[in-house]
Amino acid sequence: MQEWSYWIGMAGTVAFAVTAVIAVAPKGIDLFGASVMAIVTAVGGGTIRDVITNAPVFWSIDESYIWVALASAIAAFYARPLFTGKSMNKLMLYMDAAGISLFSIQAVDKVWGEDFGIPIAPVMLGVITAIGGGLIRDVLAGRQNLLMSKELYAIPVLIGCVLFAFVLEYIPDFRIVGGISCILLIFVIRIAAIEKNMTVPKWLLSEAK
Amino acid sequence: MQEWSYWIGMAGTVAFAVTAVIAVAPKGIDLFGASVMAIVTAVGGGTIRDVITNAPVFWSIDESYIWVALASAIAAFYARPLFTGKSMNKLMLYMDAAGISLFSIQAVDKVWGEDFGIPIAPVMLGVITAIGGGLIRDVLAGRQNLLMSKELYAIPVLIGCVLFAFVLEYIPDFRIVGGISCILLIFVIRIAAIEKNMTVPKWLLSEAK
Amino acid sequence: MQEWSYWIGMAGTVAFAVTAVIAVAPKGIDLFGASVMAIVTAVGGGTIRDVITNAPVFWSIDESYIWVALASAIAAFYARPLFTGKSMNKLMLYMDAAGISLFSIQAVDKVWGEDFGIPIAPVMLGVITAIGGGLIRDVLAGRQNLLMSKELYAIPVLIGCVLFAFVLEYIPDFRIVGGISCILLIFVIRIAAIEKNMTVPKWLLSEAK
Repeated sequence: MQEWSYWIGMAGTVAFAVTAVIAVAPKGIDLFGASVMAIVTAVGGGTIRDVITNAPVFWSIDESYIWVALASAIAAFYARPLFTGKSMNKLMLYMDAAGISLFSIQAVDKVWGEDFGIPIAPVMLGVITAIGGGLIRDVLAGRQNLLMSKELYAIPVLIGCVLFAFVLEYIPDFRIVGGISCILLIFVIRIAAIEKNMTVPKWLLSEAK
Repeated sequence: MQEWSYWIGMAGTVAFAVTAVIAVAPKGIDLFGASVMAIVTAVGGGTIRDVITNAPVFWSIDESYIWVALASAIAAFYARPLFTGKSMNKLMLYMDAAGISLFSIQAVDKVWGEDFGIPIAPVMLGVITAIGGGLIRDVLAGRQNLLMSKELYAIPVLIGCVLFAFVLEYIPDFRIVGGISCILLIFVIRIAAIEKNMTVPKWLLSEAK
Repeated sequence: MQEWSYWIGMAGTVAFAVTAVIAVAPKGIDLFGASVMAIVTAVGGGTIRDVITNAPVFWSIDESYIWVALASAIAAFYARPLFTGKSMNKLMLYMDAAGISLFSIQAVDKVWGEDFGIPIAPVMLGVITAIGGGLIRDVLAGRQNLLMSKELYAIPVLIGCVLFAFVLEYIPDFRIVGGISCILLIFVIRIAAIEKNMTVPKWLLSEAK
């Protein structure tokens, strides 16, 4: 299990970094700024999680997350036209979906294992791990962030994290299979949202005035 | 003493969460985003304090802060018309005032007890505990934050925290009565500011250009 | 060596605080808000570094950083006309350049000594120490930050930090002289950028659309 989850994590890291560069490049930015945005997006959420739970920051133990984000940023910066094509854009959205699915459930598992504020803190930190980096990126880039948007992005993550918390609480023997199922569930909902342009349902929305 | 301060703390948490939802809802936000804003506002300041002083984050020990913020957010989201009424708005402002008064002095006391950077760090972290959550909320919501406003909000908190630092330094035997007095002082100045529409005095202001 | 680096550090702290006040004052801000901006700018980057590496926050050990930032902020707030003059502005830019040169290399040295994520984490945290406070200030003030600007500010810092990482890795016996050289290198490039209005070279830039 370790093996494949590691590679999905790296795919997610690539997607986070590449989409960050594609998002900020049209504003006119230099390679340094683009790389900062990419690294922040890729590791920001997990860093907040580790700082809050007082765990050693994950990328100080395995630096490949930083190297992969940096290499992806440089590649995306100079090969922008390649990444803005339609099929490449779709590929990045799928990899991003894989990333948030995996990172959030991994985070719930990690925080639960540290016995930190069970049951609500692991769920919160699962969501923060998935979306925290993107929030910092959008704040730094002066862009509207996903909390203020109707895209169905964070809610699938929340659903998966809550379900996985139930698994860990009531049927901990099914931790592995439950974790994989929750990862798949988030991924499937997110892909459906991308393909069908699904937005947040109306009864969950306040009207803009 | 413990007992009543706990309930004021919960009232403050409710106020922070409700006012956050009321503030961001008109921008068009979903229940998830509104809940994030509410929780960030309610526990953000104390989280920064605990992370900086390397103390265990307070809501990992007593999760009721998160549950109360979340329940308040959901209630406020669906019962918005109720909360935007004039008297309800006033009630929320008063509860918010109680919250910042209590949280800031409690924070000074806590950080002083940890012997962390006395005397200036406890004062700084007292102010951050009271206003930090609101600052993060405003940054995430793309709103102008209170540092850039003339409302008399943070200065009463600062005055109370400085006075309480003097109490802890020079007359530590009066810690309890001094703490309560400083909480009341902040509360009274803040209520006066609300009722009389008091703003920051001119000699403390730079002119906007 | 300790002695002179301490004084350069204080000069950098003064410059960070003064330039923060000068930057936000025209937006119309009160003394409290200006002081918060000054302190955040002066100690924000180092605070992020210490929180991430789980080291005690530097200003809890030596509070003079906070006192100096606060005194500089108050002076700059009331003596704004003095500081906006051309030669004073130049002096501040030079002191700021000294600050980022020193703080970044000191940070690389500190994080390397903690054996934290060598070699990439010390470089990252060196850069963050130098520019992190300014980024938070710009986010709080609603200003465009340096990541989105063409000014040659962060890149000299990055170059110096990378070079110093090579020194620490391959010729650790030259740590002192290498550190001083890297500080001087950053300072010289930054001064050249100020004097010659140098901007980020075009091949490192994406075009704004």
